[in-house]
Amino acid sequence: MITDIINKKRLGKELSYHELDLFFNGYLDGTVKDYQMSSLLMAICINGMTEEETFALTKIFIDSGDTLDLSFISGTVVDKHSTGGIGDKTTLIIAPIVASLGVPILKMSGRGLGYTGGTIDKLESIPGYRIDLSDEEVIHQVQDIGIVITGQTASLAPMDKQIYALRDVTATVSSVPLIATSIMSKKIAGGADKILIDIKVGNGALLRTKKEAEELSSLMKKIGKIYQKEVRTIISDMNTPLGFCIGNSLEVEEAIRVLKGEEVGNNLTKLCIDLASELVCMAKAVLLQDAQDMVLESIRSGAAYQKFLDLVKAQHGDLTKLSVSRKYKVIKASDSGTIEKISAIELGKLSVALGAGRMTKEDSIDYGVGIQLLKQVGDMVKKGDVLAKIYYTKLPHLQDFKNIFLIK
Amino acid sequence: MITDIINKKRLGKELSYHELDLFFNGYLDGTVKDYQMSSLLMAICINGMTEEETFALTKIFIDSGDTLDLSFISGTVVDKHSTGGIGDKTTLIIAPIVASLGVPILKMSGRGLGYTGGTIDKLESIPGYRIDLSDEEVIHQVQDIGIVITGQTASLAPMDKQIYALRDVTATVSSVPLIATSIMSKKIAGGADKILIDIKVGNGALLRTKKEAEELSSLMKKIGKIYQKEVRTIISDMNTPLGFCIGNSLEVEEAIRVLKGEEVGNNLTKLCIDLASELVCMAKAVLLQDAQDMVLESIRSGAAYQKFLDLVKAQHGDLTKLSVSRKYKVIKASDSGTIEKISAIELGKLSVALGAGRMTKEDSIDYGVGIQLLKQVGDMVKKGDVLAKIYYTKLPHLQDFKNIFLIK
Repeated sequence: MITDIINKKRLGKELSYHELDLFFNGYLDGTVKDYQMSSLLMAICINGMTEEETFALTKIFIDSGDTLDLSFISGTVVDKHSTGGIGDKTTLIIAPIVASLGVPILKMSGRGLGYTGGTIDKLESIPGYRIDLSDEEVIHQVQDIGIVITGQTASLAPMDKQIYALRDVTATVSSVPLIATSIMSKKIAGGADKILIDIKVGNGALLRTKKEAEELSSLMKKIGKIYQKEVRTIISDMNTPLGFCIGNSLEVEEAIRVLKGEEVGNNLTKLCIDLASELVCMAKAVLLQDAQDMVLESIRSGAAYQKFLDLVKAQHGDLTKLSVSRKYKVIKASDSGTIEKISAIELGKLSVALGAGRMTKEDSIDYGVGIQLLKQVGDMVKKGDVLAKIYYTKLPHLQDFKNIFLIK
Repeated sequence: MITDIINKKRLGKELSYHELDLFFNGYLDGTVKDYQMSSLLMAICINGMTEEETFALTKIFIDSGDTLDLSFISGTVVDKHSTGGIGDKTTLIIAPIVASLGVPILKMSGRGLGYTGGTIDKLESIPGYRIDLSDEEVIHQVQDIGIVITGQTASLAPMDKQIYALRDVTATVSSVPLIATSIMSKKIAGGADKILIDIKVGNGALLRTKKEAEELSSLMKKIGKIYQKEVRTIISDMNTPLGFCIGNSLEVEEAIRVLKGEEVGNNLTKLCIDLASELVCMAKAVLLQDAQDMVLESIRSGAAYQKFLDLVKAQHGDLTKLSVSRKYKVIKASDSGTIEKISAIELGKLSVALGAGRMTKEDSIDYGVGIQLLKQVGDMVKKGDVLAKIYYTKLPHLQDFKNIFLIK
């Protein structure tokens, strides 16, 4: 019986493959209700799952849909995933870099929910950009230009899509085994040979502690092993937002500046170089140092930026129509001193309040709004200096967002 | 935000009155969804609630509806509640006993769900018996004959009704603070001055351990204190069913035999005398021993039975039409020896399989079916002796119920 399965997990016991299969497939066919699934998910969040349970659930998720066969593509196909963060536009930068170096990349991305943005929303801020490619179009484009960034197709791990939507509104997102299952089922169904996961830790991320990030890393590598996929991970900070821009059009503009080599030395550029180098290293079996030289050269030569333009063109986007709101308001330093902290989570909340993100699946997004930081952590500022520009359509109550900057 | 509240409890933190109020009243008005409520309920089941949270939630439940004002009734009004068990027909026996002794009793009972039966279902097996009295009819009848047993009116703690239905299908029933909230909100809204709770412990009960029962007892007494209600509790065994009969009409017949003084020395009669004595002792401020003498006398004299007949008549029931299925099958002893155990939970499962109970709210009940035990724990039996009669309409697969009796 359905409630017996929930009860078992409530008491912290291990569920069998058969029980998980019955419950989760029952959810897809409607015999298990939303409210029963959320009850089980909360029990899993609190009481955890064993590795065996996690492996079983990942298989059930994968088996709920198709698995792409990419064996027709010559070369090692890589995929990259981020657990999500504030200002995380790394996919827009890394994918063109590695593709420009001859490493085919097929990236299926998601929409943002909660305070973290989604790559698909960012790309949709480019008028005309298609995110609903069919499996055939995806395959054709990878063969043609070596890069695709599209929305999750409905046919890959459809169970994950349904479960994720429910987890999001029932506070059952923060579970290492559920995160591992969700990410790995999609990645494995996606068909890439090698997978790089950027695990974010900090106040603006799903995971708050390094320990959880390490657990997740280890679990995902074990799942990868079962499916003969090499999985590497990078654990990166998400207490501070990535780069200077938050908001969809603003982030596309910033990604372009990084690809053109116009942004150097900030945390976004550094992370992108690290991730891209790791991907090239995995795909080409070269030394990490050599991979990094190749990455830097692809930016310097303009090859990476050109690949981004090819991508946008292939998916019908028109960058000349990208637009940022013309109304903006500045935030000034209330004191003189050094910027000790720029809070990712507070900026995430502000971006949602501006309309750059969504709190429920039904919310619509205002692509032109967002925040541009003019300072970074460590900068010395004088009272009255402009710290950030807030691009808005309808200005929220800024008094509610006083804790973005910590100046000491 | 709604998910922030769930998250807080997921992390084991204390929720404020305001947060609980927002969440639970949000559920009533539809802004909090079923799947969000079940997620929070599971987090409460696993992480618990503090006393402060339990007091707050009880108040929120009470405030969701009306509170009966029984001050017009002369004398102390008592109420009695059982946490539910297999074969528990104590209300049908105790209420007439105490009413016959001049202690007014107003009992609002529930339907059975899962393996434990409900008093209201048992009364509905008496053709014509009305369980849907209005508040006015309830008050009139208490004044008139000093006893009412009716269904929960929709106006008392309506939140409990909705939450309970959800808990039942999401495996979130087994939580001491949630049980305390559910019982006490109904009892306090019911308006009685003094409340006696029969807490069942064992394989056929909600609570499996004495420790949980004691926690529940202590919590309910503290809640009572806040509302100036004296609460007493009796912790009683539910590993073995109460009495010899399980099934609605069969249990009414058994209750009548106890009221007539025809059943002595078994666990049902003993518990009923204990509970009734406690109620009389509370209401009349007499010694427990004196109360017990009064109870025994009310049975011996026929006053208790007469009060039961008055009750049934007042609520339009016709006992001459009470019927038990004419088809029955016997269970015989497979061995000679002593009966060590008669499993309440196994009998509960069999009674549901027969149609005497319901597993979902939509199931209908077959009032005439059930089980009559012919032996009790401690009896010596020979192989082939008849242990029980199974009254059925459609016989379930009896092989599935081999573990009812343990003979050694």
